[in-house]
Amino acid sequence: MTIHELCTPALILDIEVFESNLTKMASYARRAGANLRPHAKSHKCPAIARRQMEAGAVGLCVATLPEAEVMAEAGIPGLLITSELVGAPKIERLMRLLERHPDIMAVVDHQENVRHLEEAATAHKLQLKVLMDVDVGTHRTGAAPGRPALELAQVIAGTQRLKLEGLQGYAGHAAHTVGFENRKVVSEEAMAKVLETQHLLNKNGLQAMLISGGSTGTYNIDTQVQGISELQAGSYVFMDLDYRRIGRRGSETFDDFTCALTVLTTVISRPHPDVAIVDAGLKAFSTDTPITPECKTVGGVTYTWAGDEHGKLSLTGAHREVRLGDRLEFIIPHCDPTTNLYESLYAVRAQKVEAIWPIAARGHSPCRPDTP
Amino acid sequence: MTIHELCTPALILDIEVFESNLTKMASYARRAGANLRPHAKSHKCPAIARRQMEAGAVGLCVATLPEAEVMAEAGIPGLLITSELVGAPKIERLMRLLERHPDIMAVVDHQENVRHLEEAATAHKLQLKVLMDVDVGTHRTGAAPGRPALELAQVIAGTQRLKLEGLQGYAGHAAHTVGFENRKVVSEEAMAKVLETQHLLNKNGLQAMLISGGSTGTYNIDTQVQGISELQAGSYVFMDLDYRRIGRRGSETFDDFTCALTVLTTVISRPHPDVAIVDAGLKAFSTDTPITPECKTVGGVTYTWAGDEHGKLSLTGAHREVRLGDRLEFIIPHCDPTTNLYESLYAVRAQKVEAIWPIAARGHSPCRPDTP
Repeated sequence: MTIHELCTPALILDIEVFESNLTKMASYARRAGANLRPHAKSHKCPAIARRQMEAGAVGLCVATLPEAEVMAEAGIPGLLITSELVGAPKIERLMRLLERHPDIMAVVDHQENVRHLEEAATAHKLQLKVLMDVDVGTHRTGAAPGRPALELAQVIAGTQRLKLEGLQGYAGHAAHTVGFENRKVVSEEAMAKVLETQHLLNKNGLQAMLISGGSTGTYNIDTQVQGISELQAGSYVFMDLDYRRIGRRGSETFDDFTCALTVLTTVISRPHPDVAIVDAGLKAFSTDTPITPECKTVGGVTYTWAGDEHGKLSLTGAHREVRLGDRLEFIIPHCDPTTNLYESLYAVRAQKVEAIWPIAARGHSPCRPDTP
Repeated sequence: MTIHELCTPALILDIEVFESNLTKMASYARRAGANLRPHAKSHKCPAIARRQMEAGAVGLCVATLPEAEVMAEAGIPGLLITSELVGAPKIERLMRLLERHPDIMAVVDHQENVRHLEEAATAHKLQLKVLMDVDVGTHRTGAAPGRPALELAQVIAGTQRLKLEGLQGYAGHAAHTVGFENRKVVSEEAMAKVLETQHLLNKNGLQAMLISGGSTGTYNIDTQVQGISELQAGSYVFMDLDYRRIGRRGSETFDDFTCALTVLTTVISRPHPDVAIVDAGLKAFSTDTPITPECKTVGGVTYTWAGDEHGKLSLTGAHREVRLGDRLEFIIPHCDPTTNLYESLYAVRAQKVEAIWPIAARGHSPCRPDTP
């Protein structure tokens, strides 16, 4: 099957670019002496997770329990669930997963949650490895560095069933900071907080060896910081417009990794000489950034949202004619929530569809009676 | 199972409110003498489509071919695909569907597309009923009213396999116009364009009886216009914040229908006395409007986006304490693209989960070799 036979909108992965991104990050991490536990929330796709493992990853990060279930079932080891699992339904579901996959790790940021996890693990006779989530400046989840973090670590250490493996210091605010030098300052400040917390724990007789942090935007900053042992970058496999604009050292374009993911569309209406309508709207691209899709096929075309299933193209500056039925590819503003909108992606090499990879953990699939 | 046992984020449908919305629209359309062909793009859910049929709908509208396939397979008759199907892959896929469901209707706005559909229908020995899509002011798809529309209608009339059933005049720009009187002016102007086009066709010896238009926002405007025979409203079953703000006659709140859909979340972190973090972010709610989710459980709480899986609540004005593990329901900014993010919804009556309804047409599932 070739790309020309696909119904649109279709999610297209340029497999050569993807493989180059995969190799580049894996070799960089290896050279820097850091473990790579890539974040699966970007792709939710077991086929990609397997390739990340083959390239040397120590496991994968996941954001949710359903993601963990899908990846574990696909045989991916070493899963770290990077969001706190709070409340009986999630804790019970975690225990059922842990029974079959004892190497799964969770994160905690609250003493009450630690108590509930300990109670559940005791009831199920299980051990649970945890990272303490530390707020390194994103001000979202995480224990405050210093005394609050120490107190929480002491509570974890006092349990029978939870084992403190390390600390998570995810600097979401650093990942997309524009300008390499700015980003370096912000990320180093964030990483210092998690390392200071580790030091404070050590001084108080507690071990927390695994330090997990980093992102695609800070991969070559955080891995240069002594003590950051793991990188949870995710977007590097796909890249997107939101990352491309953050710049690298010496350039306003962050091109360490290359955009591998596009949405293939069809021009379904030509209502005006200067306007074309494509069949990809806000159900085909995530709208969470102010950036709009960028036409890869024809230069000088501007995309604006025009509803659930429509995008409106201004052709006033188009570099060539755009006709009804033309198939146009668009680079994606933000890869993670866009991938989430598709059942599968097409892995394409030289116009040929080499494989169809299910995005098996797409969408929210909350627990149900028949969930294992 | 009760609502308290569900893992979050979970999509919750208050079944009593839903049934009231369903009945209200059905009886209104009946009294107004208009047919109701509700739009399935809002729910993508066969269980809801069946209830709409039971309430008297003449069929359903769908936005895409995969939606049509899912609904047809679920036994829903009278499907109107409201977006143009352009290009060989989609036309072939339509033919395969049409073979098994000859009552499916498509829309056209371009002579070239009419020619391609005619060729395919001839090759497959099929008949295809079409509506001519007329641009009534939304400036998205649709033939321009007047001579261009007439010429297109004449081309359709000249085919062997396509039958012109009527006209589609979808006024997307009217649906969300704030203020009933403003909306009435905008929508009546739009509907006049499609009716003038019908008149022009009649004068030239062409019949186009079915006139399809309208939306949840204009249901009681368009059905009062003589000649508008069908309403394609969709959001009324769920309602959302984006519709609630458009107002009705005599009120700034559009409360003809009531919000039936919420996302149930859990407070997973309490990093600060004034801040709570819930487990529902931009993969749990669509972000295409500037409106943010509204907390239904606790008044005075403000939601802001905090990533793929996180929402940040400001509690400074909260009407009661919010604790770790609290389960909070949020009303949805825009129902259509939010429903699309979930595998299924929970139909809940008095805290009990009465049914789990798969959102079977969620997400993009482009054609594949194994697609029938």
